[in-house]
Amino acid sequence: MCTAATYKTKDFYFGRNLDLEFSYHETVTVTPRNKVFALRHAGQLDHHFALIGMAFVVGDYPLYYDATNEKGLSMAGLNFPGNAHYNKPVEGKDNVASFELVPWLLGQCATVEEAKALLERINITDDAFSKELQPSPLHWMIADKNQTIVFEQTVDGGKIYDNPVGVMTNNPTFDYHLLHLADYMNASADVPENKLAKGVQFNAYSRGMGGFGIPGDLSSASRFVKVAFTKMNSISGDSESASISQFFKILGSVEQQKGCCRLSYEDDGTPVCEYTIYSSCCNTDKGIYYYTTYENSQISAVDMHNEDLDGTSTISYELVKDQQINYQNKPNTAE
Amino acid sequence: MCTAATYKTKDFYFGRNLDLEFSYHETVTVTPRNKVFALRHAGQLDHHFALIGMAFVVGDYPLYYDATNEKGLSMAGLNFPGNAHYNKPVEGKDNVASFELVPWLLGQCATVEEAKALLERINITDDAFSKELQPSPLHWMIADKNQTIVFEQTVDGGKIYDNPVGVMTNNPTFDYHLLHLADYMNASADVPENKLAKGVQFNAYSRGMGGFGIPGDLSSASRFVKVAFTKMNSISGDSESASISQFFKILGSVEQQKGCCRLSYEDDGTPVCEYTIYSSCCNTDKGIYYYTTYENSQISAVDMHNEDLDGTSTISYELVKDQQINYQNKPNTAE
Amino acid sequence: MCTAATYKTKDFYFGRNLDLEFSYHETVTVTPRNKVFALRHAGQLDHHFALIGMAFVVGDYPLYYDATNEKGLSMAGLNFPGNAHYNKPVEGKDNVASFELVPWLLGQCATVEEAKALLERINITDDAFSKELQPSPLHWMIADKNQTIVFEQTVDGGKIYDNPVGVMTNNPTFDYHLLHLADYMNASADVPENKLAKGVQFNAYSRGMGGFGIPGDLSSASRFVKVAFTKMNSISGDSESASISQFFKILGSVEQQKGCCRLSYEDDGTPVCEYTIYSSCCNTDKGIYYYTTYENSQISAVDMHNEDLDGTSTISYELVKDQQINYQNKPNTAE
Amino acid sequence: MCTAATYKTKDFYFGRNLDLEFSYHETVTVTPRNKVFALRHAGQLDHHFALIGMAFVVGDYPLYYDATNEKGLSMAGLNFPGNAHYNKPVEGKDNVASFELVPWLLGQCATVEEAKALLERINITDDAFSKELQPSPLHWMIADKNQTIVFEQTVDGGKIYDNPVGVMTNNPTFDYHLLHLADYMNASADVPENKLAKGVQFNAYSRGMGGFGIPGDLSSASRFVKVAFTKMNSISGDSESASISQFFKILGSVEQQKGCCRLSYEDDGTPVCEYTIYSSCCNTDKGIYYYTTYENSQISAVDMHNEDLDGTSTISYELVKDQQINYQNKPNTAE
Repeated sequence: MCTAATYKTKDFYFGRNLDLEFSYHETVTVTPRNKVFALRHAGQLDHHFALIGMAFVVGDYPLYYDATNEKGLSMAGLNFPGNAHYNKPVEGKDNVASFELVPWLLGQCATVEEAKALLERINITDDAFSKELQPSPLHWMIADKNQTIVFEQTVDGGKIYDNPVGVMTNNPTFDYHLLHLADYMNASADVPENKLAKGVQFNAYSRGMGGFGIPGDLSSASRFVKVAFTKMNSISGDSESASISQFFKILGSVEQQKGCCRLSYEDDGTPVCEYTIYSSCCNTDKGIYYYTTYENSQISAVDMHNEDLDGTSTISYELVKDQQINYQNKPNTAE
Repeated sequence: MCTAATYKTKDFYFGRNLDLEFSYHETVTVTPRNKVFALRHAGQLDHHFALIGMAFVVGDYPLYYDATNEKGLSMAGLNFPGNAHYNKPVEGKDNVASFELVPWLLGQCATVEEAKALLERINITDDAFSKELQPSPLHWMIADKNQTIVFEQTVDGGKIYDNPVGVMTNNPTFDYHLLHLADYMNASADVPENKLAKGVQFNAYSRGMGGFGIPGDLSSASRFVKVAFTKMNSISGDSESASISQFFKILGSVEQQKGCCRLSYEDDGTPVCEYTIYSSCCNTDKGIYYYTTYENSQISAVDMHNEDLDGTSTISYELVKDQQINYQNKPNTAE
Repeated sequence: MCTAATYKTKDFYFGRNLDLEFSYHETVTVTPRNKVFALRHAGQLDHHFALIGMAFVVGDYPLYYDATNEKGLSMAGLNFPGNAHYNKPVEGKDNVASFELVPWLLGQCATVEEAKALLERINITDDAFSKELQPSPLHWMIADKNQTIVFEQTVDGGKIYDNPVGVMTNNPTFDYHLLHLADYMNASADVPENKLAKGVQFNAYSRGMGGFGIPGDLSSASRFVKVAFTKMNSISGDSESASISQFFKILGSVEQQKGCCRLSYEDDGTPVCEYTIYSSCCNTDKGIYYYTTYENSQISAVDMHNEDLDGTSTISYELVKDQQINYQNKPNTAE
Repeated sequence: MCTAATYKTKDFYFGRNLDLEFSYHETVTVTPRNKVFALRHAGQLDHHFALIGMAFVVGDYPLYYDATNEKGLSMAGLNFPGNAHYNKPVEGKDNVASFELVPWLLGQCATVEEAKALLERINITDDAFSKELQPSPLHWMIADKNQTIVFEQTVDGGKIYDNPVGVMTNNPTFDYHLLHLADYMNASADVPENKLAKGVQFNAYSRGMGGFGIPGDLSSASRFVKVAFTKMNSISGDSESASISQFFKILGSVEQQKGCCRLSYEDDGTPVCEYTIYSSCCNTDKGIYYYTTYENSQISAVDMHNEDLDGTSTISYELVKDQQINYQNKPNTAE
């Protein structure tokens, strides 16, 4: 379904894979500070931090999948079907509709600490954005350069988890993933040593057995283990180029290839497959949002600071979805 | 170490990951038909099919890592340490040095059938290209649009294997990989059915469990299974863009991320890591060679048919190794 | 640590492996109906169902590890360190010390339904049996021939889980094991079919690949999967001999062999290992308790109905721990 | 299918599981020194070492599944379908029928070194014992207390492999198993250390994770890994009781439970399952053959030295196949 990750070199990076079988018309969208959000139960958000991220914009309302604010606080909503539980409004709580959560939290908080304080008293409501756009079942990863948390609201209420590995996938709940990851703690990127049969001389046939035992399938539990292994062992230079290259490699380690995750079949036998629609990487210090799409591996970028952040309307950039190939020897006939 | 793969839509595609801890100065190199190869034991190859591929060129001699000829026959050499065994020249055999094999075979053969006939009587010799460039231990995957084979020469002699899955990695020998893959034959891209405990209602928490059980580590045996699963289940459109996008996803499924495959440590504790230096994809019907590098995810391309294929010297294109980012909102100050 | 299981043929069977690095002086112990239990907070249990099971008996008080009552209701306590949470007594609850739970529940309830009713209002207290015998952190599997449940009391309070597979191990909590098991739902005892690479003819080298993908290590999560697979696929005759033979095979599938689960090392380097101290199987319909020990593979048996069940004191049978070998050709000189 | 193993304490032990879906009428059989073997091509074996082992005896001819001679040399034949290749007799070779191999080799050799010398010039022939008893496709594990080897004859001829782990299963060939085992070399019986994510504090939920990553299914490749792990990590006392107890635990780790390895189905839907028909353990120093059967977990024993080893006819003991239960509290009514 989806995978989110963080990465730190000189700057701090936050991004995600969106894995689905279909796509809305999402765009890279900047929301300036004075875009007014009329909230369903929590009044009006007139002035707030500016945001950049991926959103489906409906009538100038940005429905963010993931976003970063001008302070560097970032969050992503990931699919959480069967577990996410949204409520009716409750007296004495901050009642925030699921689709409002990103602007509400990133609009007001500069850090994870501040976000935690708001989340302590939140109640995510089941209001639909519109009849056509019913609430998606989500949980959220929220990060700044100092810490990462996960917020989940289930039938047992809201829970804030510290996330020591800075990655997230989908079901089950976050505590499961962390326990499950512990099973693989012995998996090492180093050349393996013989601990199985003392005294036997094994012929390690492969140069490098990096992470032997790590699962490679596309279930959310296995993607969590694989992306945690990749992220926690990543080494890169700290230049912008080296950092974002490594970040996209981390996400690439759990990419969903078309055909490999079949959900169902059309009546005519055509398989319906999830695949990685886009991968994103935001430099949260600089406010630059990088992305690739399934069919365009070139990195495109939008810099929020190249926009007027004091505006009142969202600014959106269409995704460049076609493969942008650099032909090194153009035909002479083209001249 | 390395992974090679084929893929077929309207056209036939062949390519590979090169996974190493260091890189020579390889370039995309076209060898025209009249470039003369003076072979160590097998005479002189004056006229031959034109080739395109990745090569380290030394004094106009292309040391190909992988290449495709103008007839669409393709081959890649993959690391095979400890198993590859090269001999002294033998009477009655075609004695070909390991570094000569690519031009010798692709220079003469239009199909795998023709290549097989030559391989039946070959003896790969241990001649060094030069004192500095000793023979690399290799095995080779060779493909046209109709079939794929693997050729290995070990202490037991040369063997030609049919390769029904069209992928290849490194050690051990090819027969091992095929037997090992059979263990995973039950892994499916479909939503899993309960076969473990009849009558129990399981809660499949993840939408799509694509390939549960497939390994995700970087050993050559696990990469073989993962890339075979990805390739054999791949679905894509058959346009050039859709085809090469899917091809790079197939190779991406077994990419080596920097830090995740540590071979050793420098004296100062710096880990020495293998990583995917480049990934290639050749449209073997059109003779267009596409590639990405670790730090440049944009696809670059060289078309052999844009060169004079009747020439006598190699033509090389430097790899574009820096991340080529498409900035969608350039700052106004830049104007 | 431990594994419990149920099995049903004509009769219903319940048993467990006790996996520890040391052993108290446990005995097969029958508690007759009129043995008085003076409970810490819940008054006195004067008359109750008779019990049979494995217990460490201290001053005629049976500290049961697992037991079955004369109605066929059975339960076993399994290690649950770090998760089990016992409280101080609470007004309005049935306050039962952890070591009292087995006689309290099995003494009063004939069925799981009745046990559930009692568990709804229970509060497990942290009273120690004695200064030397502090409470063990446990969770419990409880079964009759119609259903199996698990009861766990953590910091979040008490929880009753339906257990559709009728097996149990240790940490983490039961809901984790059931979710984790779902990952393996595709594992089949049948000869595998090729779903990985359509059209490829694989050579399934092994006759029977029963359960490919099932883990074989000794962690509690893996033992849960392995024993669930073995139990849910078990086939046997329904005679007493066939049934108990199969039951011990089910437990044998997750046995801990000496040396294979090292917990720590003595100062002199001697490893401290968990191993399967005993395995038990109670025919809950007939009240016959069968067991084997690590070093005695012959099944010993105690039948509760061969005792006076109206007595007031426990009756204990020492475990037969020495290997009982049946020598088929005794030397003549021995006559 | 089958698993063989060795174990060494004060004495040396050799044994195996026989896993099949049906059983001949095998018996523990002693062959004395002067039982004459009329070989098909290799003359007559009049006087030879005495043997003990499991055999199907046809007309006083012992068809051994596994055996040990009076010098302690042992061997077991294991199923090797599709790979075993028997030939017509060949000039200049020792032509020995597959069913003759055990008496021919154990009859003449006191050590593995001596057996190796004979195997160097052997040709296993495809002679049938009788029309009803066609040759079984087998490979053999041969051991004395100093070394273990495997002998396989395939289409590529005979091969002798050193076996550093002293265990064996079935297909594919032995070299595959040893390479495959190397993948698991990092699996340890110790409590796992965190090597996956430096700096993260994992909560290892299970006391002891013995061998995390070891497979637990019943394929021959997985059984090889599991039994090698169990054997190579085994710790036991060196008394006869402790040694044979541990030996049967080693074999028990890869036991095939009825229902878990389904080969096919009868017309009425009844599954045909492989299961562990018997497990054996021979003290090769003392010539005592211990065994258990699927439905009799008590160890039975036959001591070759309690027989007249200078005889001319085989001596057989029927297997005790019924569960031998030790009832500790017999009913009074039975007196």
